[in-house]
Amino acid sequence: MCELLGMSANVPTDICFSFSGLMQRGGRTGPHKDGWGIAFFEGKGVREFKDVDASANSEIAKFVRNYPIKSHIVVSHIRQANSGKIALENTHPFSREMWGRPWVYAHNGQLKGIKKKPLIQYCPVGTTDSEHALCYLLDQLKLDYDNRPNAKKTFFKRMHEILTQISVHGVFNVLLSDSEYLYCFCTTKLCWITRKAPFGSAQLKDDDVTINFHDETTPNDIVSVVATAPLTTNEEWNIMEPGELVVFKAGEVVAHY
Amino acid sequence: MCELLGMSANVPTDICFSFSGLMQRGGRTGPHKDGWGIAFFEGKGVREFKDVDASANSEIAKFVRNYPIKSHIVVSHIRQANSGKIALENTHPFSREMWGRPWVYAHNGQLKGIKKKPLIQYCPVGTTDSEHALCYLLDQLKLDYDNRPNAKKTFFKRMHEILTQISVHGVFNVLLSDSEYLYCFCTTKLCWITRKAPFGSAQLKDDDVTINFHDETTPNDIVSVVATAPLTTNEEWNIMEPGELVVFKAGEVVAHY
Repeated sequence: MCELLGMSANVPTDICFSFSGLMQRGGRTGPHKDGWGIAFFEGKGVREFKDVDASANSEIAKFVRNYPIKSHIVVSHIRQANSGKIALENTHPFSREMWGRPWVYAHNGQLKGIKKKPLIQYCPVGTTDSEHALCYLLDQLKLDYDNRPNAKKTFFKRMHEILTQISVHGVFNVLLSDSEYLYCFCTTKLCWITRKAPFGSAQLKDDDVTINFHDETTPNDIVSVVATAPLTTNEEWNIMEPGELVVFKAGEVVAHY
Repeated sequence: MCELLGMSANVPTDICFSFSGLMQRGGRTGPHKDGWGIAFFEGKGVREFKDVDASANSEIAKFVRNYPIKSHIVVSHIRQANSGKIALENTHPFSREMWGRPWVYAHNGQLKGIKKKPLIQYCPVGTTDSEHALCYLLDQLKLDYDNRPNAKKTFFKRMHEILTQISVHGVFNVLLSDSEYLYCFCTTKLCWITRKAPFGSAQLKDDDVTINFHDETTPNDIVSVVATAPLTTNEEWNIMEPGELVVFKAGEVVAHY
């Protein structure tokens, strides 16, 4: 099992609080000691930090935890290796450019036989089933669309179809973003919460930390957080259903399949 | 003008010393205050740090300077914006996957009219002429080779041809790596040095730092450093000629055109 963490927000927001909790699962409160990675979108640009060390001990993770990088979309992953050796090229998130956008992706689960799926344009750098699945997904989307599609609803449906098709191979909990939308697909374990005014306070499950979002936000802020399991103990998280795709934009759910 | 810094080594080596010097050119001893980026190869994986702040003031740059990430290939860039607004997506190095390898690239110079060159598969995310040139280069290589070529000499020659062709558009000093080779192409300003046993000491030009490589290395280490201008005052750097391509592998020059 790996842990996923995603965020979508209408204003650049730091994720230090949630990342704090997640990091503890990397070698301390959880068994995910085989590397971690986090990608921050800033406009169409992406800032990425990765490490093959357990996140609870990682110098880079400490830096990220203490340095509040503000971003409107975040995709993060801590890993317990089950496919592919422990190496930087096997560390999520994985990314590829498509239609002039950076596509960033993290996956939790195992996909049996996915590597037999032939690829066209995108090719894995590492040896994980996860990266193969990303390459397959992008290849399929590019077969259907030469350019970035304008008709979003049709596109979201096609995305849902391909994700569902891949999920036949096993467990496929996914976070995926193109710098505008955050796609969250669940087959076994994924949940989300949207925070907006009036903001309350939250108590982290994995670390002895409480935050009062009221002190950290403005009344117009809308922030959604997606995670493998609820990160806080005193809030109501939405538990996703198997086969469900939720699409976020600027902190809010814009589509749901 | 931007500053380039590259490294190729036969063992994982930290670049803190050279990066120290380069960083000072970002807003202190030089005018390159519009962002910087550095990519460290670790096997086929890449670790990348980027910032739109001047490198002399950047928190991330301070972290990178003090945290010795060991790598066998490094590609780094500090930027004075001349094409494309100051934004993360316009910050070098740029990277794309080709043939299952990450290709990382940084460019110094301006390329007039390059954006009129039609692209096939690779598409820029930002608005720089530099990224367009990378996409064009990779498209051309992929037209000639479906898969990673075995015949390296023929491939290096083809690489040199396309780089030369692009350089007709202006100034095109380039660092490019696929995790095995470091390609350095010069049209106006690029120089390199290979350090091996017996190691001496070096005095940084831009910062009040001296290092004795003898204390930091083993007798078998071979490390080449490539930069826009010599970084040290007491060593003999090889100044590259216009149109010259030097290819490094594991710290040493393996081809030269």
